[in-house]
This record gives sequence, structure tokens and C-alpha cells, in this order.
Amino acid sequence: MNHPIRFVLCETSHPGNIGAAARAIKTMGFSDLTLVNPKEFPSREADVRASGAVDVLQQAKVVATLGEAIADSGLVVGASARRRKHHCPELNPRECAGRTLTMAASKEVAIVFGTERVGLSNEQMDQCNALVYIPANPDYSSLNLASAVQLIAYELRFAQDLFEPLQEPEFPPASGRDMELFYEHLERVMFASGFLKPNNPRHTMRKLRRLFNRAEPDEHELNILRGLLASVETGDTDD
Amino acid sequence: MNHPIRFVLCETSHPGNIGAAARAIKTMGFSDLTLVNPKEFPSREADVRASGAVDVLQQAKVVATLGEAIADSGLVVGASARRRKHHCPELNPRECAGRTLTMAASKEVAIVFGTERVGLSNEQMDQCNALVYIPANPDYSSLNLASAVQLIAYELRFAQDLFEPLQEPEFPPASGRDMELFYEHLERVMFASGFLKPNNPRHTMRKLRRLFNRAEPDEHELNILRGLLASVETGDTDD
Repeated sequence: MNHPIRFVLCETSHPGNIGAAARAIKTMGFSDLTLVNPKEFPSREADVRASGAVDVLQQAKVVATLGEAIADSGLVVGASARRRKHHCPELNPRECAGRTLTMAASKEVAIVFGTERVGLSNEQMDQCNALVYIPANPDYSSLNLASAVQLIAYELRFAQDLFEPLQEPEFPPASGRDMELFYEHLERVMFASGFLKPNNPRHTMRKLRRLFNRAEPDEHELNILRGLLASVETGDTDD
Repeated sequence: MNHPIRFVLCETSHPGNIGAAARAIKTMGFSDLTLVNPKEFPSREADVRASGAVDVLQQAKVVATLGEAIADSGLVVGASARRRKHHCPELNPRECAGRTLTMAASKEVAIVFGTERVGLSNEQMDQCNALVYIPANPDYSSLNLASAVQLIAYELRFAQDLFEPLQEPEFPPASGRDMELFYEHLERVMFASGFLKPNNPRHTMRKLRRLFNRAEPDEHELNILRGLLASVETGDTDD
């Protein structure tokens, strides 16, 4: 693991949960915490619940959007305690740990947690490469936020003991920022070609986001795709 | 699993932790909780932290000694977040789950947790058949009690679920034939736009094949991609 594994908490309502999550990640040997638009932070309650992990809170990044939190991430995994009707690939926490450690050999990974009440929004899930589903009681799947963080961090730690890094990839994975630029470009080309109608572009764009996020393009592949879009846009032909 | 798996909390100091532990075991589908000489129980704080798992608290057995709690157990596993100098066999949480499920086919199992501050006493460990050691950061192994309960319960549930089939996909995966038709179409568009030079198209096409094969498009996604290519090809524009 050469690159950080970042725990990202989105719009957390209760500062106590932020503290408990900091403690959970530190017990498993992690320290990178990003808070997206927390309701209350810094907070005395968070410090109390963090117990001996106040250092993790002090070093936490606070940002306004999920996009900022994952800008440097090569793999973004969204956590869910329930199965969601979303078409991201679904991992269990053990598979998540394997994928995460493989990617962390070459680029930062973000594991993203939604709000206590509703979890991740569809828009947030559209920014993920995969979802991690924590198996739970179908009649009561209401895991505490910090418990979910604890389980994911535990699986990562468990896997680290067994893990041997795979072969280095030829090119680094595309970053979240590059993926956004690609999607903007794709949308432009789709409008210009008349394929997307301006009244309701969302549905098709979401489908395409899921497809490309699932593929986890590397930088070189993304350059090919951008080149293809540029070429289609200018309408140059050889013949 | 024909016999109960019982979670036993010994001399818990903070009633909030009892509530959080009840929630943790219920999320993983368990309901048998025994409290050995709790400092404060029943408790409003326990009920609050239990959230939707108050039923587990209401059904909890309260006893005076660990001996009473484990009287019917065929296997007693003591939980520890630190390695202890004790001569019980030591299991990791995954091994604990395997041993527990095997035993629960024929007799009740107890998983025993000590106090928040010092864990299990030597006398309590002497009543265990094995210890389960939760791997943790050697510099900060201070797991919250409910987090430890959550991890053990999670491993049990995971072991139970191992062969459960995953979610059915919404659309069937694209066939090899459809993928070939898509690649032919893509190549045609790339030549027409001037992006691919006729002398050596192979390299770029192979890269794109790898990318799309990795994404494993379903039939619906492939239709979107084909539609986009057709739209670019005819050059219709809406504006």
C-alpha cells in the first residue's frame, strides 16, 4: 500500500459519529479522513467519541463537495448497508478490501459513506466506481455509521496481512477530476450530434457514467477516449 | 445453525455500549444477548443507542456470573482486542466464525466480551474454550466494545451468507456477437472522423477493446453506445 486509503464521510449529521469513525479507522491503522460538508465540525462531542484518535480529527480534511474529496482517487467505492437499485458493480467488504489494496499500490483510494439517515444519494453513487454492500439482517440493516466504517477498515487491515501487491499497472488510473472532464466532453459531443435531447439528458448520461466508472479507465485509455471525442467534434475526415 | 449464538457482555460500565451492542448484533441477524452483572440496566441511554434494537434489550438475560451465562454453551469464545498471555487457542474473527457455526449445528455457542477498560479477567478467560483476537493497530488497539461485537457478528453473518447468490442484473450482458458489431461500428466511426489512421489502427482498437470488455456492458448500455455512434455518424444536429 503506497498510496492513502481515504475514508470520506458525506454530510454527517451527528458529530459523535465523526469521532467514533475516527476511532474506528485508527484502530485499524488508518488515518486519512475527509469530511464533506459536515453538519457540525470541529465539535467537542466528536473529540469525546474519538477517544485516543483526536489526531485523526485534527488532520481531517473538510471540503464542500464529494468531487473535491475524490479528486485524486483512482478508485472510489461507495458504502451501502442496503442493496441499492444502482448499476455499479457490487462488492462485499472482503472483495472491497482486495480491490482497494490492489489500487492503493498505484493511486489513492476513497471509501465513501453517506448520511446516517439515507446513505449515499444517486448523484453521489454516480461518482463511484463500485459499491460495497455490507451484508446485514434484511429486517434490520440499520448499521451505525461508525460501525460500517469499522467493518470496512477491519477488512482492509485483515487483507493487508495476507496481501502481496500484484504487478504494477502500465499506466496510472485516471483521477476523479479527469473523469469529470471526460464526462463533460462526452456530453458536449452527444448534444452536438443530436443524440442527447436538451430536455432530458440525465438518464443517458447516468447510464454512461456507470459504464465508464465500472471500467476504471487508466490515464492512457482516457486520452484515447478524449482524442476520439475531439476528433468527432472537429469533424475532420481523411477521405 | 440450529442453536443460538449468544453474545455475553461482562460487567459493562456504560449502558450506551450495551445499547450499541444490541444494535450491532441485530443488524447481523442475531438476538441472544446476556448481560453479566451490568453496572446499569435497564437504562434509557441503552434504549436510545439501541435505536431499532430495543427488542434485543428487552429479551436480554441478566445474570450474576459468567458461569450462569455460559451454562448451556458447547463452545465459549472470549473476545480480545489485544493479544493476551493466556494459553487458550487463539482464533482470528474469521476462524471464530467457522468454529462457531460448526458448533452451533449441535449446541449453543457463547461469545464473551469483557469490560470496556480491561477486557476479560484471567478467571473469565479460564472459562473460555478459545480466544478470538481482533487484528488491530498495535499503537492504538482500543476498539469500542460495540465495535468489537459488530466485527465478530459481521464475520458470523458473512460466513452464513457465503453462498447466497448476488442480485439479478436488470439487463442481460451483451453477447460476444453484439460486442463485435459494436467494435466494427466504433472502428468505422474512428476512421471516418480521422481519429484512426488506416496504416496502423490495431493498437488503439486493442486498447479500446480492453477498456470496454472490462466494463462488461449489458445489452441496454450497448444500445446506448451504438445509438451514440450512429448519431455521430450521420452528423445530424439539433441546433
